[in-house]
Amino acid sequence: MIDPAALTEDLIRCASVTPQEGGALQLLERLLTAHGFQCTRVDRGDVSNLFARWGQGKTFGFNGHTDVVPVGDLKAWSVDPFGAEIRDGFLYGRGATDMKSGVAAFTAAAIDFVTESPPDGSVVLAITGDEEGPAKDGTVALLDWMQTQGERMDHCLVGEPTCPDVMGDMMKIGRRGSMNGYFTITGVQGHAAYPHRANNPLPAMARLMDQLGTATLDTGTAHFDASTLAVVTIDTGNPATNVIPAQCRATVNIRFNDAHSGASLTDWLQEHADEVSKDFNLRVDLDVSISGESFMTPPGELSDLVARAVQVETNRTPVLSTSGGTSDARFVQHHCPVVEFGLVGKTMHQVDERVEIAQIHQLKSIYTRILRDYFA
Amino acid sequence: MIDPAALTEDLIRCASVTPQEGGALQLLERLLTAHGFQCTRVDRGDVSNLFARWGQGKTFGFNGHTDVVPVGDLKAWSVDPFGAEIRDGFLYGRGATDMKSGVAAFTAAAIDFVTESPPDGSVVLAITGDEEGPAKDGTVALLDWMQTQGERMDHCLVGEPTCPDVMGDMMKIGRRGSMNGYFTITGVQGHAAYPHRANNPLPAMARLMDQLGTATLDTGTAHFDASTLAVVTIDTGNPATNVIPAQCRATVNIRFNDAHSGASLTDWLQEHADEVSKDFNLRVDLDVSISGESFMTPPGELSDLVARAVQVETNRTPVLSTSGGTSDARFVQHHCPVVEFGLVGKTMHQVDERVEIAQIHQLKSIYTRILRDYFA
Repeated sequence: MIDPAALTEDLIRCASVTPQEGGALQLLERLLTAHGFQCTRVDRGDVSNLFARWGQGKTFGFNGHTDVVPVGDLKAWSVDPFGAEIRDGFLYGRGATDMKSGVAAFTAAAIDFVTESPPDGSVVLAITGDEEGPAKDGTVALLDWMQTQGERMDHCLVGEPTCPDVMGDMMKIGRRGSMNGYFTITGVQGHAAYPHRANNPLPAMARLMDQLGTATLDTGTAHFDASTLAVVTIDTGNPATNVIPAQCRATVNIRFNDAHSGASLTDWLQEHADEVSKDFNLRVDLDVSISGESFMTPPGELSDLVARAVQVETNRTPVLSTSGGTSDARFVQHHCPVVEFGLVGKTMHQVDERVEIAQIHQLKSIYTRILRDYFA
Repeated sequence: MIDPAALTEDLIRCASVTPQEGGALQLLERLLTAHGFQCTRVDRGDVSNLFARWGQGKTFGFNGHTDVVPVGDLKAWSVDPFGAEIRDGFLYGRGATDMKSGVAAFTAAAIDFVTESPPDGSVVLAITGDEEGPAKDGTVALLDWMQTQGERMDHCLVGEPTCPDVMGDMMKIGRRGSMNGYFTITGVQGHAAYPHRANNPLPAMARLMDQLGTATLDTGTAHFDASTLAVVTIDTGNPATNVIPAQCRATVNIRFNDAHSGASLTDWLQEHADEVSKDFNLRVDLDVSISGESFMTPPGELSDLVARAVQVETNRTPVLSTSGGTSDARFVQHHCPVVEFGLVGKTMHQVDERVEIAQIHQLKSIYTRILRDYFA
């Protein structure tokens, strides 16, 4: 029986700030190999990843990461961020919730499950060292490698923290998309006393940002919250009050549900830009960057499986959510149906990041039950 | 007979960049004293000023400055900015138009007039070394000193360049006021994915600046152009596209005519700020700085006197204007009726600043005629 809390401690002691491997994947590789998993290190650039498979046939996969965000203000910590100190039932350290405990829980569950009740099928662990960084050489690289090797998962669970308040209250079946629109309006500089000799880009930018910032994109869809647009910055940088500036820039960030796509929203932004350009006789440039489209694994077999396990182990029915920030599920969804479930992540990325030790054990139990039911 | 062009040359050779006196006032003091003017140097802080009076009784005053703006990019000049070089009938140098030629012209006119046809009255020259700088220790200090000494002018002419295109085409009888409004909108910072948990100040600022930037303040009054408002900067400085910022700042510059005052416009700005504050439930702070109220010497005795002299000497009827940037007339107007007339100022503050030598002589003739008619 693998103790997932002890394994979390060992992982915390590996200083694996992205892209440092820090010994974390080596530790897991040794452990998994010793229990019959076939392990392959998939390295790309300065990032290391670990692919581990037990068995053949129908495959349940777990995805997670051992890299962590930087410590931040070390002086603000009350413990050594890589010391794995325990106090009052909590295990402290960078990565304690995000997500060394999750990796430890599914690793422990997978090893014990295949050892104690070997299934007619396969369990895969796809663990990356680049989730907190650029995420270009991490899960993406693992999935690329799997593709070339003919390796696949039929279903996948990402073990990120998903519960906002208490263990079991939420799982995630998808995510809103995210994109930025960068506007530049260019006019003609001039003296503030003679506005008619200049063409001021600022009232036009104000009109555009007022329109976009107060627009209603939708009111939500079946499994998604309403799409949102936030004007995040408007900047001119003109220190001279007697000068009308030539240029102004602004950025909007859109989180969008399945009623939209990056392309449809780009068109929508462009229409507003064109309208203001025409009304004010000014050049309006728009650049967009689409961080990710919205995605969802529709409620069904996989979400039911996970929800039942959570229900039995925690006596709570998890909400099927599509809220929150990004995760590697956005890559896995191109490979197979994917959901996310993990423990409470309140202190993730914070000083004195910590996890309730009881939750790590509970999480292992949930993951074990998922495997048992999946192969039943 | 004083040659005003030679005197301008001598003054250009004095490197009197604000607040440097550079020998310019010393030169004038010696010359005026030698011709019977009673001179007093009125110094305040690091600024030097010169008060000169000839005679007693009804007093006509000239106001001007010998300080000049910095040279700027010396390499871009084709001449020594303090060399007073002459080419093709033009005298080159910093201050050639703004306004050593004007000071030379009224000094030469005053000396020759009181020498050749001593009037039953008095001529005053109030010359400052701080017009291009903060203007706190210049004409203001001179007028303060005059007040304490019981010195006064009945009418005053400021010899700044006033003609946009050709000699004689414009005089100034007043000026629009100028003020800045500084807005700060403070909301609640938050994650761009959850706008409902934040309170974004940017759409509110956009609304406010759209309203102000497209407002019509008036359509002009009898002697003034329409008031104007220019949004000169909107700034946030938020580099993170996933963060809704807590604060945004913006500045508007208003040039206003006699339909408004700094106080009435402050109220108007505050009303808009309050409305947006209420509509968006955000704190909106407004600071204002009033650089100057609008002022005017109504067309009449003084403007007629100057316009007639210009008409006779140039065969042009000057437009009575209230346009343009600030000058020390804004201080003199509190002391006595004041108008401004000077030569063409196209190259003022520029590289290779220069004055047509013939205009300096013409300007002396106009000033001489004004004095003759005034005391006739």
